[in-house]
Order: sequence, then C-alpha cells, then structure tokens
Amino acid sequence: MAQKLRRHSLESTAQAGSGHPTSCMSAADIVSVLFFDEMRYDPADPGGRGADVFVLSKGHAAPLLWAALKEAGCIDHDLLTLREITSPLEGHPTPLVPWVRVATGSLGQGLCAAAGMAWARQRDGEPGRVYALLGDGEAAEGSVWEAAQFASFYRLDNLCAIVDVNRLGQSGPTMYEHHVGVYEERLSAFGWQTAVVDGHDVGQIRDAFARAREVEGRPFAIVARTFKGRGVSFLEDKDGWHGKPVKKGEELARAIAELGDTGVSLPVKARRYDKAPKPLSEPALHATPDYTLGQEVATREAYGTALAKLAAASPRVVALDGDTKNSTFSDRFKAVAPDRFVESYIAEQNMVGAALGMSTEGKIPFASTFACFLTRAYDFLRMAVYSRPKHLVVCGSHAGVSIGEDGASQMALEDLAMMRALLGTTVLYPSDAVSAERLVVAAAQTPGIVYIRTSRPKTPVLYANDEPFPVGGSKTLRATANDAVTVVAAGVTLHEALAAHDLLKKDGIALRVIDLYSVKPIDAATLVRAASETGAIVTVEDHSVCGGLGEAVAAAVAGRGRVEILGVRDIPRSGKPAELLEAHGISAAAIVRAVRKLV
Amino acid sequence: MAQKLRRHSLESTAQAGSGHPTSCMSAADIVSVLFFDEMRYDPADPGGRGADVFVLSKGHAAPLLWAALKEAGCIDHDLLTLREITSPLEGHPTPLVPWVRVATGSLGQGLCAAAGMAWARQRDGEPGRVYALLGDGEAAEGSVWEAAQFASFYRLDNLCAIVDVNRLGQSGPTMYEHHVGVYEERLSAFGWQTAVVDGHDVGQIRDAFARAREVEGRPFAIVARTFKGRGVSFLEDKDGWHGKPVKKGEELARAIAELGDTGVSLPVKARRYDKAPKPLSEPALHATPDYTLGQEVATREAYGTALAKLAAASPRVVALDGDTKNSTFSDRFKAVAPDRFVESYIAEQNMVGAALGMSTEGKIPFASTFACFLTRAYDFLRMAVYSRPKHLVVCGSHAGVSIGEDGASQMALEDLAMMRALLGTTVLYPSDAVSAERLVVAAAQTPGIVYIRTSRPKTPVLYANDEPFPVGGSKTLRATANDAVTVVAAGVTLHEALAAHDLLKKDGIALRVIDLYSVKPIDAATLVRAASETGAIVTVEDHSVCGGLGEAVAAAVAGRGRVEILGVRDIPRSGKPAELLEAHGISAAAIVRAVRKLV
Repeated sequence: MAQKLRRHSLESTAQAGSGHPTSCMSAADIVSVLFFDEMRYDPADPGGRGADVFVLSKGHAAPLLWAALKEAGCIDHDLLTLREITSPLEGHPTPLVPWVRVATGSLGQGLCAAAGMAWARQRDGEPGRVYALLGDGEAAEGSVWEAAQFASFYRLDNLCAIVDVNRLGQSGPTMYEHHVGVYEERLSAFGWQTAVVDGHDVGQIRDAFARAREVEGRPFAIVARTFKGRGVSFLEDKDGWHGKPVKKGEELARAIAELGDTGVSLPVKARRYDKAPKPLSEPALHATPDYTLGQEVATREAYGTALAKLAAASPRVVALDGDTKNSTFSDRFKAVAPDRFVESYIAEQNMVGAALGMSTEGKIPFASTFACFLTRAYDFLRMAVYSRPKHLVVCGSHAGVSIGEDGASQMALEDLAMMRALLGTTVLYPSDAVSAERLVVAAAQTPGIVYIRTSRPKTPVLYANDEPFPVGGSKTLRATANDAVTVVAAGVTLHEALAAHDLLKKDGIALRVIDLYSVKPIDAATLVRAASETGAIVTVEDHSVCGGLGEAVAAAVAGRGRVEILGVRDIPRSGKPAELLEAHGISAAAIVRAVRKLV
Repeated sequence: MAQKLRRHSLESTAQAGSGHPTSCMSAADIVSVLFFDEMRYDPADPGGRGADVFVLSKGHAAPLLWAALKEAGCIDHDLLTLREITSPLEGHPTPLVPWVRVATGSLGQGLCAAAGMAWARQRDGEPGRVYALLGDGEAAEGSVWEAAQFASFYRLDNLCAIVDVNRLGQSGPTMYEHHVGVYEERLSAFGWQTAVVDGHDVGQIRDAFARAREVEGRPFAIVARTFKGRGVSFLEDKDGWHGKPVKKGEELARAIAELGDTGVSLPVKARRYDKAPKPLSEPALHATPDYTLGQEVATREAYGTALAKLAAASPRVVALDGDTKNSTFSDRFKAVAPDRFVESYIAEQNMVGAALGMSTEGKIPFASTFACFLTRAYDFLRMAVYSRPKHLVVCGSHAGVSIGEDGASQMALEDLAMMRALLGTTVLYPSDAVSAERLVVAAAQTPGIVYIRTSRPKTPVLYANDEPFPVGGSKTLRATANDAVTVVAAGVTLHEALAAHDLLKKDGIALRVIDLYSVKPIDAATLVRAASETGAIVTVEDHSVCGGLGEAVAAAVAGRGRVEILGVRDIPRSGKPAELLEAHGISAAAIVRAVRKLV
C-alpha cells in the first residue's frame, strides 16, 4: 500500500505541477501502517470522537494524506484535482476535507493541537488515541518542545508522535541529518517514551505502535529513520528535490515503474472502540453581571468573574492560561472548575495550539495571558483561522500603556492590529465590568475566533446590568443635536473621552462619545452617521496608531468625514498610568486639545 | 555583596510600590559573582565589544541588575527612582541604561539574543564572553530550546547560561519546581555542557563559571537551585510574593534587618581582555540594479541579488534564513559570503532574536523567511523595537494569495499590519526588481527595524536602474490633469492597477496610479493631493483589508477624500495566482469594477 500511496503522491503533484512528493514518499510506510492497520476509525465518519485521529503536522505531505484517505474509503475526490481552486484537496491540509481537524503547513504546530485533543480525550475518558506525524526539520521549532513538555507533564499516554527523520529540509540538510539518537535523547529528556525504527520497515513501525498502546502515564514518540523520495532512485535521498514534482510523461513513468506493483487495494472496515463517545451537551451559556453604576472594577477582573459563571453554566467550557492566571483573573475559573482549567505555563504557542485541539473535541476554550504575550502565538492564531474552529476565545489582559510601571515589554500595543488582520475574527474591547461580562458570554456564543481585550486599571461601571452588547454594535454614550465632534474610544480611553466631554461642555462644546466595544465587526452605520452629523471624528486608543481602533474607524468612514487618530506613536517607558496616558496623547486633556484644533 | 543587592532590590521596589523583589533575591548570589568576580569589563565603558556582556533574560529582576550596575560603578542613578517616568531605571531592562543591550521582560528571549552576540564574537575572533541569566519558568518557552540548539549547533563555547531555578512562577509553582535534574538533562540533550549548583553558594557558582571558561566547542549551562525571596524568612520560598514589593516602613525594616550586614563595597576595576576589539568598518552600502525595462523578475529574487551585492560592499552585513534560502533568494548571499550567512533552520523566533544580538555587535543583519512565518517571531520583533537596535532588517517573501497553489498556510496576509503596528518601524513593499534592490540598500542604511515585503511571482521591471526610492516616498506612475480616480497599490497589485488603467483608458476613464513602495512612513502629502485632485482613492493590496496598505492610506487621507479598500476578506485556498487575485477582488478586473462604481 505504501508504494501505491507513493504513486498517488507522484501522480497528483506531477499533474498539479507543484507540491512535495519526496516529503510524502519518506512517510508513506508510516502512513500506510497508520491508516490500514493501526488506527481505529470508521471511513464513513470523519467526526469520530470515539475513533483514533491523525494530525499531519508536516503539512506539505498533504498529497500522501489525500491518497491514504482515498484508498481507505474516507473520501471520494479525484486525487488528480490536487491544488485546483475547485478541489478541497489543497496544497496543505485544511478542513475543506472534513477528516482534517486542524490546518497544517506552518511547521511545529500539529503536535500542539494533537496534545490539546489528547488532553480533552483523557479528561473525558474517551478511548480514542491521537497520532501526529512530524518532520525532522520542524523539530527545530520551539513550539514542538512546548508541546512535548505539555504532553509529558499532563501524562498524555493517548498521544503518539512519529518523527519522520528524512534528513533533508527545504534548502539543505536538517540540523542533525540522520542522527536519530539526537531526537530520541531530546524526546526522552522531555519525558516521552521513545522507539527508534527504520521508517521503511513496516514490521518495525507496527511493533512500535503496539508498544505505544501499552505505555501508561507518558506520551510515546517513534523516531523513524527514512529517506526523502524513498522508492525512486533518482529522488531518494537526493538534494534539490524538496517541493518539486516530477515531470508528467517520461519522468513520471520512470518513477512509477521503479515503484513496482502498485495495484493493491485494502479497503478499511470500520474499527471502533467499544465505548461510544459521551454525547456533547448543548452549551447553555449565560452569565448575568451584578454591579452597581460607578463601581470601580477592572475589565480583566470582570472577565474572570464571567468566566467562572460560564464554567458553571456549561461543562464544555475550558480555560487555559500561561502562568498569569492571577493577573488575567482566569484563576476564578480554576477555583470553580479546576479539572477544566489547564495551566499552560509560559508557553503561549502551545497554549493556543492546544486550545485549538480542544475545540475540535467539542470544547469551548478560553485562553488567556497578557495581551502582549499573545504576539508570541500569532502564527498559531493565524493557522487557527484556517482550521475554522467552532469556538476559540482568546483573552489578552494588560492592554496598552495604562498598565504603567512595568514598562513597554508588558504593554500590548499591537494586539488589536494583529487580531483584526486575521480573516474572519471577532475583536471585542470592553470598557467596564458590565460590558466585559456581556462580551465574555457573547464570545462563547460567537462562532470562530474571538479576541477579548481587557485592561489592567479599575474603571467605573457605565452600564446597567441588563444592557445588551451585541457583537457588531456600539454605544453612543453622549449625544446632542449639535455635537461639534465625535470621540470614538474603548477601554480606558473611553473614560478619558467621557472626562473630555465634561471638560468641553463647560466651554459650550458638545462632544458625542461612542463606545466602540466591538472593534470587529464594526458598527459602520453609526460611525458614518456620526461623521456626517458632527464635524469630525477623533478616535483615541491605548494602542499603536497603526492597525487598531482608529484605522478601523477611518476605514469604516471611508472618507465620508474627517478622522483624527490619537494613539501611541513613540516607545513608552515605565511610569504611572495617568502620566503615560498624558505623555502619549491619549488622556482627557489630549482629547480636549485635539477637539479644540478641529472646532 | 549579594545581601546588599538584595537590600537595594527590596528598597527600590518598596519605594516604587511595585516590582519583583523576590525574583531578584533568588539570583542575587549569581549576579554578585558575575559582576564582582567573573566578568571582565570596564565600568566606564558600556559599549565594551572587547568585554564580557550580561543579558538578564528574566527581565523582571531588573532592580537586581540596576543594583549590581550601581555597586560596580557602571551607573550613577539613584536606585530609588526605579519605575519613575523620568528615570532610566525601568521596571524591566531597556537600553535607556546603555549597559542593557537588548530589552527583556518577555520571557524566553534573552538567550536567543545572547546566542546571536556569541555567534558574532566567535566569528570575529573577539574574546569577550556572553552570560545570560534565565528563570526556570521561562524555560517553558520553546524559544529557549531554539536558542539552545542554535548555540550547540554553532559550538558557541563563549556562551554561558545560568538558570535560576527558584521553583515559583508568577501564579504558582513552575512545572518542575526544584527538580534541577530535568533542566540539566534537557540542556545536556540539547548539546550543552552543564553544572548543577546551589545558587546561594558563592564558591560553587564561582567554580562553575571557571569550568565554563575551560569548555571548548559547546556552550555551558549552570543550573542553579535557588529560593525565591532568599534571605528574608517571610519571603523565602513563599507563595504569593511574585511581583509584590514589601511595604515601606516596618515590613521593609524587618526584611532588611534579616539580611544582616549590607555595608560591603566592592568597586570594580576595569578588567579587560588583552586583545583590543577590531574596529568596526564604516559600512559602504551600495548596490546598483542592472535590469532592463519590462524584464520579468520576482522581487524576492531581486532581494537576493541586492543582498549579495551588499555582502561584497560591507563586511558588517550578515544574513540569516529559516531553511527557506532557496525561496527567499538569501542563498545568493550565502554563495558570496558563506561565513556571514547563518542558517537558522526552522526556528524563526531564535532567528530574529539572534539577529538582534548580532546587531548589538555592530552587524547589519538581514533575516528572511516566508512572510507568513514571521508571525512566529512577532513577540521577538516587538521586543526588538524596545531594544532600539542600530540596524535590523527583516524580509518576508511569498506575500499574499499570489503565491498560489501552496494555499493559505503559506500566504502572508497579516504581515503589513503586524509590522506597521510596531512603533517606529519602516515598512517597504517593492513592486519590481529595481525598486526591490534600491529598497534593500535603503533598508541597510535606515536606522532601526526595517521590514521588506517581497512577492513570489515574476513581475515586469517598471523603473530605470537609476531611479531613486527614498524611504517615505511614492511613485506616481500614471497621472493626467483629469484623473477620475486614484489607485494606490504595491507589489503584485500595482501591476493589476496598471492593467486596470489601460482597460479603463479605452473607455475614456483616466486613472491615476501610485506605487506606495514605502508603506511606513507613508507619503501622506501625495495621497492627500491625489484624494483632492481625483474623485476618490481605491487601494488594492494582496493582504488582509485590516491594518495594511489600505488602512494606512485611509488614515493618511484622514477623511479628505473617499477611500475604498480592496484586499483579502475571506479565507483563501489553493489555486492559480491569477484565479486567486480574481477570487479575492484584487485583480485588474476587480479594480475596474470598483472604479466604475465610483465614477
């Protein structure tokens, strides 16, 4: 069967005129054993929570995955449509094929997601195992070692990683070429049980999988020594053949001839565990704020309070945090649901990857840390978009210069830009405790990836407990028939805007003030109306002037009125929050100055 | 001396009312041995290329660093101004104190920068050693293991890491608490020579440093078992004291009393290596493009060509790449200057961190990979901003959907947003080979962090070889006195805009076309003029509609004219480049449709 998978990989990439056949060929024996012998699954049921699941972390070997799925009877697509715009058989795996749980292709991420799936199954007592196939080149990614430590720390003995050590990377040999001992020693030091095999010896591979099923209390890694391009003399172990198909015609024919008999068929019958998976409960997501107007509460604290309420409301909600739980207030979730709280330590990439994996197991994950440290996980958030998760909520606390004395390294000034730029995301930015709690619930109910930005300082409660906060909306907090200027803000700067309103009112200048709690999607209608009804819009944000709230407003208004953006332009330093708001021109006084220039 | 450093740390944080005294106290003995015994440096010379250098990777122990620098006679600031807005003694280390080479405070980054410094010194034959002090909590960051493998792979025996295993993280115990063997085993598996010491035993620490100086061919790690809050009974090894100062007055007095005699003074005399550092050459950075108009060349290829010319022009230029050198074309640099090319393998975080470290040694580093994978290093780029490097050029290739068949995982759609959002960065986006080469040279001459975005497809040369491309400028390629609409574009979409111009011209609609090769800083004057002279601006970019070129233009125009943003809104898939440009509404046809709606 491995030879047939190799043939498919050669043919489909030759037809496409691009792709990575040699990276498929090194792993063909491993994948053939997995799909046609080792894994228990029903080819008719891609959802399969009760079945074993496979993650192709070395995503460029997608043609091999498509071939295995086709031969196993899981999919019926024509393999020769690989990489065509109308085909779900993409160049790297995506969930357009429902057997793909997480999109891969950015190396070093599959093991993190697999670890998250394994954690969820272990917690729920589900018997299905999780297999992740990695390349040797990608083992250079630190995130692989974050996942490795996570998996051994949480004793995920339902997780099996296979490292396809084929010696050659994209642009030359890998760091350790065929020194499989390096990988074995490192994985062992990271707490894994290991086996080294000849990755082209089906018997050895099968035996290793059998051993992996026996191990208790730790994950299992198979380090497989392989050859890139295995099976075709002019490709095997040859430099210069990464990401390069053979030519259709004579070259392809010559390659296929070398593979020998590729006529075998091994239809897979459903192989399931006896135990049926527990049904997923319908999430009943609700939480009611309980504050009094004017009460001083940080939005980060309200996040924790609401999260704890969600913990009680639905067993599907899980929370992760990167050793900041006492600052993000996710420790309130841990206090009421310790078995659904996952301390992810200071390893944000794996935290987001694992949360994504949990999502594919029906969880509604909330992952939190300081917003600035989410930049660490940006590539994981990017790939999460392409994984199209049902739910993934990310909360970043300690937004902006208003954190004060800790200094620039702890200030998130790019998080709105980075989360907005991702396709199809939702970006929420509450300004008081009521809206924070409402938006936490909304986040859990909103499909896809939702980002919540919270702030460190305490701010007064602005809204009644029953005020609704629909995603995509805004709140006009101050408005008259003759407003001179509109100020749009969120978070701490909204309170500065309200103070500016009061200061200017004394001078007879009427300010409209809009709380833009939903930064994406944005309430363009309200903004355009404000731009036309008042002379201009001033936006003010505790964030870089590029890519954040201000530019979101400028783009929404699209020239139908003046937009002046106040935000952080220069490198901040340690100082008191109020000093920093003033120094960076986003204080009430700065708003007053900006408005005076416009009227 | 350690007790005195502890006293300073307690007093300065108590005065500031915030900070991390207990994290200082665990490392006080290590730092005292380093500054007052082990390291060779001249307290009067912070630049010190011929001296040993210290990187405080666990940046929250900044008060300890300030105390050591003060006691050693390196700085003269009042330690009690810690965290005040007028003081350079920030909450986390920044180069406002010139002894700080790289800003720290986002954990897991210091070792990457230290490895880059060590690489540069090894290459130049400089004798000074590099010391990096890490916390145990931060060892959970994958980037630490990227740096670890980089340092052993490049045999950096001038690098010494110390891991301060104080058992307690921010919100609870670390993963491995006091199991120092775990760290030792992992570092050893990653190719380091190791020593385990009692981190409060000055003799043991000193001996370990002596051993480290003897080792050849591999880096050295000292795993130090310590106690957080060491020296004060009510702080030592106690939970709940992370990031919390003692109270001024009675509590502080009680703590200081427990420290015993803190009256010692150990002024440091200059201790230098015999060998003076080689003087840095003045960079003579030039490279002249050599193309013919209309010639089809990808900007990524022109990047490689120009980089190879810079290699010849200045020995200070170094290049790094993440196993994509045959795609980014940085292999052209390697071909002419192999000893200044650093294969960084698939570990983008360390690549950027090491490049930053090299910059502090006088190098002009160019680091390249697929632009989408730079998202992996976003936190490193963020911290690089705060490190204020003289030079750091980052190049991301394979921008946007125009890469085609590889699919979304390989498409950079957020890179302009993420690089623009960083404070003080320069963002360049060439559209043809001439501008690409010119901008590579401009990048090397521009202070700070410069991002160059290159594209995969071949595009025709638009400019004469002597055309200047100043940073902050733009090129108006098509203009008449009665242009109906202005199209602003860069990269592949500029060529779509030119095609749209020709199509519309046939119908008598005149289009102004602007090449916005400098996305940041932006040529606001030209854009505002275009907005007022033509009816509206249409921007078109192979990037997310959020945070990129379009919003940059919208913000620059600020409402002084209509701005319509064309860009990627939906998740792309594999397909042919032209199909994808059309599918995502950024083709010539899509521009024509958008313009027709406006006129």
